[in-house]
Amino acid sequence: MSDTVKILLPETEMPKQWYNINADLPVPLAPVLHPVTHKPVGPDDLAPLFPMAVIEQEMSTERNIDIPDPVREVYRQWRPSPLFRARRLEKALNTPARIYYKYEGVSPAGSHKPNTAIAQAFYNKAEGVKRITTETGAGQWGSSLALAGAMFDLEIEVFMVKVSFNQKPYRRAFMESFGATCTASPSNLTAAGRAILADNPDSTGSLGIAISEAVELAVQRDDTKYALGSVLNHVLLHQTIAGIEARRQLEMVDDYPDMVIGCTGGGSNFAGIAFPFLGEQLRGGKAVEFIAVEPASCPTLTQGKFAYDWGDTAHMTPLTKMHTLGSAFVPPGFHAGGLRYHGMAPQISHLTDLGYIKPRAYGQLECFAAGLEFARAEGIIPAPEANHAVKATIDEAIRCRETGESKALLFNLCGHGNFDMQAYTDYLAGKLKEEDASAAEQSMALAGLPSVAGL
Amino acid sequence: MSDTVKILLPETEMPKQWYNINADLPVPLAPVLHPVTHKPVGPDDLAPLFPMAVIEQEMSTERNIDIPDPVREVYRQWRPSPLFRARRLEKALNTPARIYYKYEGVSPAGSHKPNTAIAQAFYNKAEGVKRITTETGAGQWGSSLALAGAMFDLEIEVFMVKVSFNQKPYRRAFMESFGATCTASPSNLTAAGRAILADNPDSTGSLGIAISEAVELAVQRDDTKYALGSVLNHVLLHQTIAGIEARRQLEMVDDYPDMVIGCTGGGSNFAGIAFPFLGEQLRGGKAVEFIAVEPASCPTLTQGKFAYDWGDTAHMTPLTKMHTLGSAFVPPGFHAGGLRYHGMAPQISHLTDLGYIKPRAYGQLECFAAGLEFARAEGIIPAPEANHAVKATIDEAIRCRETGESKALLFNLCGHGNFDMQAYTDYLAGKLKEEDASAAEQSMALAGLPSVAGL
Repeated sequence: MSDTVKILLPETEMPKQWYNINADLPVPLAPVLHPVTHKPVGPDDLAPLFPMAVIEQEMSTERNIDIPDPVREVYRQWRPSPLFRARRLEKALNTPARIYYKYEGVSPAGSHKPNTAIAQAFYNKAEGVKRITTETGAGQWGSSLALAGAMFDLEIEVFMVKVSFNQKPYRRAFMESFGATCTASPSNLTAAGRAILADNPDSTGSLGIAISEAVELAVQRDDTKYALGSVLNHVLLHQTIAGIEARRQLEMVDDYPDMVIGCTGGGSNFAGIAFPFLGEQLRGGKAVEFIAVEPASCPTLTQGKFAYDWGDTAHMTPLTKMHTLGSAFVPPGFHAGGLRYHGMAPQISHLTDLGYIKPRAYGQLECFAAGLEFARAEGIIPAPEANHAVKATIDEAIRCRETGESKALLFNLCGHGNFDMQAYTDYLAGKLKEEDASAAEQSMALAGLPSVAGL
Repeated sequence: MSDTVKILLPETEMPKQWYNINADLPVPLAPVLHPVTHKPVGPDDLAPLFPMAVIEQEMSTERNIDIPDPVREVYRQWRPSPLFRARRLEKALNTPARIYYKYEGVSPAGSHKPNTAIAQAFYNKAEGVKRITTETGAGQWGSSLALAGAMFDLEIEVFMVKVSFNQKPYRRAFMESFGATCTASPSNLTAAGRAILADNPDSTGSLGIAISEAVELAVQRDDTKYALGSVLNHVLLHQTIAGIEARRQLEMVDDYPDMVIGCTGGGSNFAGIAFPFLGEQLRGGKAVEFIAVEPASCPTLTQGKFAYDWGDTAHMTPLTKMHTLGSAFVPPGFHAGGLRYHGMAPQISHLTDLGYIKPRAYGQLECFAAGLEFARAEGIIPAPEANHAVKATIDEAIRCRETGESKALLFNLCGHGNFDMQAYTDYLAGKLKEEDASAAEQSMALAGLPSVAGL
């Protein structure tokens, strides 16, 4: 048998702390602003939505933050996750590159999302919260929070964008299997939902509407909070366990990446794999290339503006400085549902603006082709989102073949595609096409950015 | 953090041999008979269907059979699979029992089936075969062979029962993603299929018809063989890697099972977890209770006859002595598609007849309820088939609570339910009912058994 392909950390070596990149930023993040006063928000402004422990993490500049034992007890069901050396893919590509992938699809929800869902559920439970509301688009996040709710005995109420609710009944069944409630949004449960339905009874919903419904329910009751699955600092923090594990796993085979690659929607899986290595670099360690890969049809980092914007379409959230296509931007219905967000995590936007992260965009057809090439070599069908990272990795491996360089490429395989076989069905049947937003649509959405005086 | 929940073997300790229970049987198996002559079949009779290495394994009485290195190289992508101590479930049940489950859902196809698919693909490739045909019902086996075909560069042609082909388009997409061909059966590709369609153009197919189509194509061309996913000795042999790993993993925590539990359709996942322990017992080791759990609606071991029967409805296969409901028996359309077979592996039938294995049957509603109880404690939604093993384990754990005994219970969680969410959707919506075959239907099917002189 040839050399190791699966690099495992024993359960006893699961990281005990997350890594907070705010501790090492050469320039601090721009402040988050209140949507009305445009003054920096404080913990009290966020208290109706999040438990205080989460708000502290959101604002912390402490480098290493302890992972509570009850969170690690749930994590260990699938963590430490495996790091794979993609020897079969390397052979198929005839590349001198050393390709590694961190596989987060081993979680019970099939993606990286439980890393933060479990943590958020724990902090809510610890502060006496009984119920958490959230929104979900394609269903990955809702499924993960439903799982977390079952682990910590919390009611989970998920507003699922109606078009996905109808198209993906299995996602709803997954959430309900864990005891969560899943409601099609817009719904009659909230004033926000009722207002939309009064205006348009046939509305198929949007992530913006679903957020409004979830937030409305959360602020109504003292025993209820809200949870978000990406974008915010504390979410990215919770995902860093993947990169910390990967660093240790690479040490076990005496290697270190030359390039770290992840797909970016809200940014949390990319941050999870990249920040622990980027932190080393910021503290004087080895310089690494960090490649954030996004869909050409929602090109937040490559085409968006680095500016203050709202997180939601209804403009209820604080303003954050980020790469954005404008909160009015509606991405086309391409198949990587987890990458359809108009904004980008402020930390990733900031580090991209500072030149540490290089963004890149690909069309969905070339990504599906890369995903199938990967599947046939490595045996795992990637989630459509993860195909973007696969595509960039294959391109870099081919570049190595051409230049003869033996680079170490590390990417985050953030989830499997087993829940996304409709996308592959459509791709294999030749029914998918590139769906880029027009330049006119993009500039119109950007025209709606808020004007924030003096910033 | 409390004690270990996930017991991992390092890749370097992956078993190098499968265990063949034929070496330790106190009474040898009854011979397999030619369907026409009723004489014992020899290797040449099977040569048109299987590669010679597989036929040798089918007939071998050697105790330990080497796993070829190229098979281990693919296995190690997910093997050794984890053994879990179900501490959260134990707590929820307030039981003194120590519950362990071997989790085979970590394979890329989500079940134990690749353990034999990879091996069979390797042996076919080694003997110059270019194409393998097979049938699939619910799609688990077809998916696994498709994966194996991609790993060993073989054409895979799957005949999928038409009703499932239409109901489960994602399974087809999964197979096609790995480059396999998936055809609805009955089809126009074979004489067998065309005959059925001429008679009944609206036929929704059956496993028996699909087998006939796959076998017909396999015997037509020298470069083509056929593969079966359960029942036969060599298939059960390949699955023993699960039990061998589990035994070593239990050693790591200084434990040994009092009871081993698995669900039984054709019998391969049960054999995989049970035979390595049963072999120890047969060689004078500790006596263990072995519980084979089947659906009440296809009660092969608990209600069937131990007699010679055909493996297929068209009576093209050899005759084997096994527990059977009669090859004409058509099980009702309950949701554990992998357990809908009229017969049972001859090795399991034989060992049940000898008293070493205790069969037990449950209805599907109580199994789904057990599956959800497990999911909410352990975070994994089991496949509907595996729910039968979960149900028996929970029952035994509750019995331990009542008696105060601290037994070690080991079961095989042979697959996850992520591809079976329609079943959970139906269960949660209250749409499932018990679908038992009537006594009259059962006795009618048994009346069709062949009369085999002198046996």
